[in-house]
Amino acid sequence: MTLSEFDIIRRYFAAAGARRNDVAVGIGDDAAVVDVPRGRQLVLAMDTLVSGVHFPEETRAEDIGYKALAVNLSDFAAMGAEPAWATLALTAPRNDPAWLAAFAEGFSVLARDTGVQLIGGDTTRGPLTVTVQVQGFVPHGQAVLRSGARPGDVVYVSGSLGDAGLALRRWQQGWAPISIDEQYLAMRLNRPVPRLAEGCALRGLASAMIDVSDGLAADLGHILEASGVGATLALDALPLSPVFQRVCAAMGQVQGARLALSAGDDYELCFTVPAARQEQVERQFAAFDCGCRVIGVIEERAGLRVRQTDGSPLLFEHGGYDHFAAP
Amino acid sequence: MTLSEFDIIRRYFAAAGARRNDVAVGIGDDAAVVDVPRGRQLVLAMDTLVSGVHFPEETRAEDIGYKALAVNLSDFAAMGAEPAWATLALTAPRNDPAWLAAFAEGFSVLARDTGVQLIGGDTTRGPLTVTVQVQGFVPHGQAVLRSGARPGDVVYVSGSLGDAGLALRRWQQGWAPISIDEQYLAMRLNRPVPRLAEGCALRGLASAMIDVSDGLAADLGHILEASGVGATLALDALPLSPVFQRVCAAMGQVQGARLALSAGDDYELCFTVPAARQEQVERQFAAFDCGCRVIGVIEERAGLRVRQTDGSPLLFEHGGYDHFAAP
Repeated sequence: MTLSEFDIIRRYFAAAGARRNDVAVGIGDDAAVVDVPRGRQLVLAMDTLVSGVHFPEETRAEDIGYKALAVNLSDFAAMGAEPAWATLALTAPRNDPAWLAAFAEGFSVLARDTGVQLIGGDTTRGPLTVTVQVQGFVPHGQAVLRSGARPGDVVYVSGSLGDAGLALRRWQQGWAPISIDEQYLAMRLNRPVPRLAEGCALRGLASAMIDVSDGLAADLGHILEASGVGATLALDALPLSPVFQRVCAAMGQVQGARLALSAGDDYELCFTVPAARQEQVERQFAAFDCGCRVIGVIEERAGLRVRQTDGSPLLFEHGGYDHFAAP
Repeated sequence: MTLSEFDIIRRYFAAAGARRNDVAVGIGDDAAVVDVPRGRQLVLAMDTLVSGVHFPEETRAEDIGYKALAVNLSDFAAMGAEPAWATLALTAPRNDPAWLAAFAEGFSVLARDTGVQLIGGDTTRGPLTVTVQVQGFVPHGQAVLRSGARPGDVVYVSGSLGDAGLALRRWQQGWAPISIDEQYLAMRLNRPVPRLAEGCALRGLASAMIDVSDGLAADLGHILEASGVGATLALDALPLSPVFQRVCAAMGQVQGARLALSAGDDYELCFTVPAARQEQVERQFAAFDCGCRVIGVIEERAGLRVRQTDGSPLLFEHGGYDHFAAP
């Protein structure tokens, strides 16, 4: 069976995601046309996943479809914004209907869950590369930026850190996840849950926010730089999942918290909160499964410092994943 | 010199294009935030260019940067929409500052000319692939769709057809454009002029519109399908540039008009107009350099028919470029 570009779009993507009544023109014309509600600002996030760079080549098509949308929704969470419409640029080496159907299904499951409609994009032939853009809204002037952290603010992180990074390391060692623990780690890598409700709840509470895609140290570093401040974290305070701790112990890896500090792909939220609003934040998070934890404090002195259990400073590499760093 | 992903964004892209005061948050946060004016609908177009597929691998970086934006602006023209903000997903195999600077300059020249600001995107390492999304506005309910053509409407095309396709064919034969004619053709391929003013002028006049990216026959075919109509074109009526005619003659290619019917990449506008509005359209186009020409008529009977000089039907392949067709 040979499907044309147009057949592919019609068959797999035209119905992907939610149905929204603010879409005037969806897939099938030169451009999409939608209605932005009054009093809202338009928010746009775009991220690319490249095969072999952002995910192992053997990753399942449905996981790629899911994750390509999830990483953008995570950016929305980090702005306190609500997603509405997605566009998809899919470059694929072959016209493989089974692969395309699985990819579209993975994308669609998350899109439906989050009320997002796929309204346009482009399908082209070439090395596997997926770019998704998500567009949506935030009430006027209420987007949570990276630049608002102030000395004295408390640093929080949602959920737990290091699971995805641990999965990726094991994958790179020729891993085939079998046990329940391993499958949990693989899910954390392949199916990150964008913290959308949590992000929206933090509007008006968090002074700065970012999602942890490149690693906590690197991403918190962006907040520090944009805000012109520094921070000290307690290594012991980093939230580690029970699975992460078990697998690290089984590997003889005693420095789990150090991996959690630098590993990317967790898509948790890292945010800063003025002390006066801490109680409100913790009340809000009581409603969320993922929870949140205080991991440090914002300080005037630039730079990121990490204290170990005995109070001594941890020396670590600041950088997260840099796509153009020498391999 | 080694630049990080963040250096690249700061150095080459943060200042690309126009400065707009409706941009609340541009490059440098998790997402961009902009203001959509009241009474306007939001329009979004996304297109990908893959090296070796959409442009020859030896294409200059500045031409790739220009064209990646131009093909999206052409979609805007075909909707009668006004562009405002662009996002860019650039996947490149190396961190080559000279290449990146040239790419950004080509992109920026066209962005400034058209009042477009680059507000976000992603830079990743991988095989050269460029996805651009342009977002902008159209007055409520006034987007020109593909679906409005009615029997009796006249079919127009702007500018001339075939120049870009002829350049691409010559390029594939190991071409190095030297003469003024050759350079003109290369410009038509590498630096297509999006017909933005023309497209906006056709709001309320054209009943349907598309831009000619895959070839006239294929793209007009999309209008016919979306509108549930057919058309007959006169092969002799296709507008051919003097350069195109000279080069075809020099090549001993007597069937220039047939190439003009099927060749893509011209980014002219193909549109349909009710007879009662023809005079208005031609008055409007008197102000535009590119001009426009009647090439056929919309009919009730489905399908595209092309008449040759002697009135006999031309048999031709309907399809334009299909990215997933067997090579």
